[in-house]
Amino acid sequence: MVSRIGKEIEISPVELGSQIAKKVKINLASGTPDPKKMPVREIKEAYAEVIDEFGPKVLFYPGAGGQEELIKEIEVNFLPLLGLSKQKNEKIVVTSGAQHAMELLGKYFLENDIVAVENPTFIETFNALKLRSSSTVPISLKSDGIDVDELEMLLKIVKINLLYVIPNCHNPAGVNMSEYKRKRLVELAELYDFYIIEDDPYRPIAGSVPQPIKNFDKSGRVIYVSSFSKIIAPGLRVGFILAREDISNKISLLEQLDFSTSTINQYVVARLIKKGLLNEKSKELYAYYKGKMKVLIDSLKEKRMDKFNESMCGFFLLLDLEKDSWNVFHKAVEKGLSFVPAKPFFLRGGDTMARLSISVATHDEIIEGVKLLYESVKSV
Amino acid sequence: MVSRIGKEIEISPVELGSQIAKKVKINLASGTPDPKKMPVREIKEAYAEVIDEFGPKVLFYPGAGGQEELIKEIEVNFLPLLGLSKQKNEKIVVTSGAQHAMELLGKYFLENDIVAVENPTFIETFNALKLRSSSTVPISLKSDGIDVDELEMLLKIVKINLLYVIPNCHNPAGVNMSEYKRKRLVELAELYDFYIIEDDPYRPIAGSVPQPIKNFDKSGRVIYVSSFSKIIAPGLRVGFILAREDISNKISLLEQLDFSTSTINQYVVARLIKKGLLNEKSKELYAYYKGKMKVLIDSLKEKRMDKFNESMCGFFLLLDLEKDSWNVFHKAVEKGLSFVPAKPFFLRGGDTMARLSISVATHDEIIEGVKLLYESVKSV
Repeated sequence: MVSRIGKEIEISPVELGSQIAKKVKINLASGTPDPKKMPVREIKEAYAEVIDEFGPKVLFYPGAGGQEELIKEIEVNFLPLLGLSKQKNEKIVVTSGAQHAMELLGKYFLENDIVAVENPTFIETFNALKLRSSSTVPISLKSDGIDVDELEMLLKIVKINLLYVIPNCHNPAGVNMSEYKRKRLVELAELYDFYIIEDDPYRPIAGSVPQPIKNFDKSGRVIYVSSFSKIIAPGLRVGFILAREDISNKISLLEQLDFSTSTINQYVVARLIKKGLLNEKSKELYAYYKGKMKVLIDSLKEKRMDKFNESMCGFFLLLDLEKDSWNVFHKAVEKGLSFVPAKPFFLRGGDTMARLSISVATHDEIIEGVKLLYESVKSV
Repeated sequence: MVSRIGKEIEISPVELGSQIAKKVKINLASGTPDPKKMPVREIKEAYAEVIDEFGPKVLFYPGAGGQEELIKEIEVNFLPLLGLSKQKNEKIVVTSGAQHAMELLGKYFLENDIVAVENPTFIETFNALKLRSSSTVPISLKSDGIDVDELEMLLKIVKINLLYVIPNCHNPAGVNMSEYKRKRLVELAELYDFYIIEDDPYRPIAGSVPQPIKNFDKSGRVIYVSSFSKIIAPGLRVGFILAREDISNKISLLEQLDFSTSTINQYVVARLIKKGLLNEKSKELYAYYKGKMKVLIDSLKEKRMDKFNESMCGFFLLLDLEKDSWNVFHKAVEKGLSFVPAKPFFLRGGDTMARLSISVATHDEIIEGVKLLYESVKSV
């Protein structure tokens, strides 16, 4: 008596990890940006300013598609920060963060189609696609991104509708896709007639990375998804899609079904972009998280836990514990450490993998966390 | 290459009416609460207060299901205002407004099922159910609510999964459902095994109306949907569902797919409830809109445009123009008046019906609007 989605939805492994993380001393599980770096004062000022300037208008129903001034600010002052520019036949649609964007895209594109995805992938976001697919095919993720040869072998025998990739600061693997592979994906999309969802929430804090896949796209096969969660704060729930106009128009109509994006929060984000806050934040946050990641990498190497690809940016590093990660996890929680056992991120394999996050931990906590992890692994 | 929802979604008639309304002098089309009555100052203060008190915590990712303090405030201080109390086996789930609630419920319950609905109904909200149904059966709406005999005749021959009703200050018809019919619906739901979605966004400003359908529900067949859009402001996008625990838990999991409800806005609503703002607002807004509705009703009667059921509360009155309402609409727009031709709210009939709204118009504008409407009807 319920739908397929109603039957199949389950608690996300990340949500589960976060709930446990609240109870322990050292949190290497969280995907939340570091609260110490959220521009709390600027956000408070922005709320007061937009209410003073625009009055009740900021409290009206949101129009589907997004608030005009925010769309203009994104186009003029935020896309350049991402190394992107809007083409003539493209359009921006504001969403309630990247997760909501993915839900809208799943709702639009999929009805029991076949979807390809990096293995591992960020299962929480991917779920909006997975629960609407007949089959999801995992393609190996390498240190320079998805294995394009393996993908092409698949494409020769199976018709897929969508490919979902996270090109920068991959969650959970921390790697960046090479420029060659970005170009190649667009060629394959044209040759084998599928769409690419480029989920790029980390780019605003990614430092110097290859240009977006979208930049190689001439025929509108790439849907670019961005978010202000990492560079401002996740609690505002504001992100956006950049896509070919006909696709964006449909996504915009689909927003009538949930009308979920807060109007005032859109004004607040527009204001923060306009003030030029994001350019400085972008550099500051890259350096900040990069510094913490270096502490994690150095600490792991020191303990000879070196089965990982070096994370280039973002919050995550994917470590092979070489033992069942759930067993290690239970030991770690006893010792006061939380991380996310990474098996749920894998469509195949991954039993011994752990996702370690530096997002909220301090330098000292990272060092202590690695020590506890080492002891936990030894004791299993 | 797209889903059924992707193919079938269209621009809503209300959205269309609103776009035209922006360009004319007198707006009897809008469904937005009157900006003059939005508690702008209190909202501004609440943003500052929750940021000062809780810091970056108000900017974290929203947990699925809603923020704890808001859920507590709703239970203790808002449900009583609605004449509701949470039963032991029930649970509140916070949503991004009532529209988002409906989208979650459609996603959970429906997969090509049969749904019954009042004729007319608020098509914009209902779309989230309609686009997931194989068939939607219209049941006549009377001056005291849905025709329960007609519904029962249907139930004897067709298995439905869901019934969607708006019991108070109906949109577009302005009527309230009688207490007898509320009881009867619950009996029928048990007898014929279906669920009832009780969409009740106007109750906070509805004055004295029969108790919620949910109050007659012993077996968890009623899903109650509420919103803060009318009593506070729509731009915050906060509402909630009250339902049997197993249903609420599933809806909560489904929120992981969009994570769209702003964390800080949940804190703001919790704060406004806690301050006791809503009890006084409730009485004030009822009297305010009731006063404007009286002006509309008196003006219409004076012009002998009297083919309507008297609206009891809320923003809307459904008038039979006795001429094609689109033809009248085009004349009216020329004269500087906007309303919503109501055919799209009807699953059958409705060609000559007009939805008139008093939400944003002043007394003088209502009087002038009725004059222009009268002239428009005459000229067709």
